[in-house]
Amino acid sequence: MKKNIIAISREFGSGGRTIGKLVAEKLGIEFYDKDIIKKVAEESGLTRKYVEHYGEFAPSSDQRFAYSFVGLDEDSNSPLVQLWKTREKVITDFATAKPCVIVGSCADYILRDREDCLKVFLYADSDTKEKRIQEIYGEVGLKLKNRVKDMDIRRSLNYKYFTGQDWGKAQNYDMALNRGSLGVEKCAQLIVEAALGE
Amino acid sequence: MKKNIIAISREFGSGGRTIGKLVAEKLGIEFYDKDIIKKVAEESGLTRKYVEHYGEFAPSSDQRFAYSFVGLDEDSNSPLVQLWKTREKVITDFATAKPCVIVGSCADYILRDREDCLKVFLYADSDTKEKRIQEIYGEVGLKLKNRVKDMDIRRSLNYKYFTGQDWGKAQNYDMALNRGSLGVEKCAQLIVEAALGE
Repeated sequence: MKKNIIAISREFGSGGRTIGKLVAEKLGIEFYDKDIIKKVAEESGLTRKYVEHYGEFAPSSDQRFAYSFVGLDEDSNSPLVQLWKTREKVITDFATAKPCVIVGSCADYILRDREDCLKVFLYADSDTKEKRIQEIYGEVGLKLKNRVKDMDIRRSLNYKYFTGQDWGKAQNYDMALNRGSLGVEKCAQLIVEAALGE
Repeated sequence: MKKNIIAISREFGSGGRTIGKLVAEKLGIEFYDKDIIKKVAEESGLTRKYVEHYGEFAPSSDQRFAYSFVGLDEDSNSPLVQLWKTREKVITDFATAKPCVIVGSCADYILRDREDCLKVFLYADSDTKEKRIQEIYGEVGLKLKNRVKDMDIRRSLNYKYFTGQDWGKAQNYDMALNRGSLGVEKCAQLIVEAALGE
């Protein structure tokens, strides 16, 4: 079956943005990543900083204490629930409007019931990720190593909080690709191939 | 980089054998699965039944008590160590002799340091796996459901015991494909595409 929507989850430093853009170019479809944050902020009235923060972090223990310990209590009126509901709406709107590639924002989870959505997880070995992050941010040594580890832990906690699922568990995706061993171009090519259907 | 060897791990009922054969056909290379068991029995002098058993099961608590609680003690002379060492030799010999597809037998782990080895994990949703196993073995209902679950637990414990690693963790592979959503033909096509290199 041809896939109109490609939702990419990715480890920090695995080149998800670059690969996602390449896939969108090859297929001639839209590409969204930061656009989701901008739109969620606009539609919800929440500050962009707040939306950005909870795109990456899980709520603190204090936040969880104030609202709900495990996952979202959809009946609550907390800003977190507002954020999540708006994010669901924005991503569903984007996916309904036209074929596109969406990177991050738990899009793979939000669109899990759409049969025309290809859910992809991108990962890489530590060396590949550290090299890439060093190129982008110029960090070195232990600071670099910690940043790479820390970001993936954040993403995994964030994903767990909002979706209740394990981030990066192969079984939640249609395909998981190792960008370290396969390379950027090959990953993009394989995603396009999978999206075109049989 | 072109991959000469393709090592496939697979959930029970995900069609690993069918897909592996298809890949070997498309690439015009050898295909091994049960051949490994036969050769290990021949070379080690262990019975075929014994080799087959530990291709699927982890040692019992009694076995572990007798030899080693966690993983293999390579210095011991137990038949399990003999089995593992012969399996390593047989798989390395096969992989060195000519390009091939190997399904199962922890080949992905044994060949992990070979850069020309593409490590693939195949999985599927329960419905797909149960449907396939029903077609092959004719089981139905709870018996079928239990068999599918049980086999994957066995494989995961076996892999953990012999390799010390988590079976099916995306990060241990070059690619992980969902045979349920992608289909047999597309999975084979994507593996071939990845094996051909950039």
